[in-house]
This record gives sequence, structure tokens and C-alpha cells, in this order.
Amino acid sequence: MKNILIIGATLLLALSVMQCGAPQTSDNMITHTVYFKLKHPKGSEEEKAFIQKAVDLGAIETVHNLRSVKEVSPKNNFDFGLIMQFEDQAGYDFYNNHPDHVDFVENVWKKEVVDFMEIDYVPNE
Amino acid sequence: MKNILIIGATLLLALSVMQCGAPQTSDNMITHTVYFKLKHPKGSEEEKAFIQKAVDLGAIETVHNLRSVKEVSPKNNFDFGLIMQFEDQAGYDFYNNHPDHVDFVENVWKKEVVDFMEIDYVPNE
Repeated sequence: MKNILIIGATLLLALSVMQCGAPQTSDNMITHTVYFKLKHPKGSEEEKAFIQKAVDLGAIETVHNLRSVKEVSPKNNFDFGLIMQFEDQAGYDFYNNHPDHVDFVENVWKKEVVDFMEIDYVPNE
Repeated sequence: MKNILIIGATLLLALSVMQCGAPQTSDNMITHTVYFKLKHPKGSEEEKAFIQKAVDLGAIETVHNLRSVKEVSPKNNFDFGLIMQFEDQAGYDFYNNHPDHVDFVENVWKKEVVDFMEIDYVPNE
């Protein structure tokens, strides 16, 4: 009996500590993705600075699991992508209207991005 | 001492059973995504049948973490998405050339999809 209690407690501890990657794989969230092409030369400092500013948006409270990616398919015109998740539409709206995001769009995105496409998705169930 | 062994064994068991979501969050893989619009009416049996056939491609050995998603942004023309991951380009090529995939593309995709875009990405590091 004692051993069963120890096993149970250990499993609970393992589950709570590991959380089994749930925040990284939240398939129930809204995933917001945007793929884009910059006006900067490939590998330039300006390119790096843009990516860093985009990644910094991950600090907005409702943004989860922000990832910066390189687009590698030759079948479209984009070079980079930004992927993030929101728990719900309210969280998405909070991000969209956040001063840091608005400032980024107006003063960085619109000046440095030459082409982009936004794709958002939820599980198809 | 016996209890420590039990705790250790239980933790190992938990780790091996749960795998901590790693396969779902393999950020080092190539992520292949395709967003598309079908010719079928929304919610139709034909639509469901198409999605099922697409999801069935997840059985190909090198496909990981296949997900069927609904596109929800009004900023593009797509209604659905299919997301999958490959460990490397060889795995991607294996999928592309697999008879089940070739058959799907020729006899299902080309006949039922009216618009699509493919986007593939890897981590930007």
C-alpha cells in the first residue's frame, strides 16, 4: 500500500513538473502565422534587427510559443515566418491592439516588409 | 533504498510513456504546410472524405505529427490546412515520392482543390 502511494505521488510529481510539453503543443489554441519577405539583403544586420524586433513581440502577455522560422519551400515568395499562439480571440485582439504591436507594424513592418501573407488556424475537429 | 528504486523506476516509466510531447514539438524538423480551398460545399460529405484521405497520408513512415487544421484568417483565400513534419529532406522526399502520396495528388488533390499554397519552414537560428 505504501509503495502504491509512493508510485502515485511520484507520477503526479512527474506530471506536474514535466507538464508534458502542453504549452508548446497547445493544439486547441489559435495559431497565428505570417510569412514575409524583407527589403533587406540576405544575412544583413538590418535583417537580423528586424527579426529581433519581431521576436520581441513575444513579450506581449497573451502571446504563447512565438517562433521565428525560415521559409524553405521554393513554391512561394517568402523568406521568413513568425508563428505564435493565442488562447482565444480576446488574447489575439489584445496582441493586435497592444501599443508595442501597433508601433512595430507602423514603424518597422510597413517600412521593411515587401510581401507577406497571414494564415491563422485552429484544429479541424 | 527500496523506495528510491521504486521512485526512480516510476519516473523512468513516466518519462518513457509520456515522452513529454517531444514528437509534437520537434522544432528541429522540417515543417511542411499546405493551405487550400476545396471545390466542395462547406460541411459536405465530399469535404469530409477529402480531409480523411489527406489525413490518411500520415501513415507514410516518414510523416510526423500530421495535423488537419481550419484556416480562420479572413486575409487569405484558404479554408483548410495540412501540417506535417519530416526529420530531414530524405524523409520529405520519401513522402513526396511515395505511391500513396502520388496517387492522392493525381486522383484526389488535383480534382478537388481549387486553390492552394505550400509553405515549408525550419527554425530560424
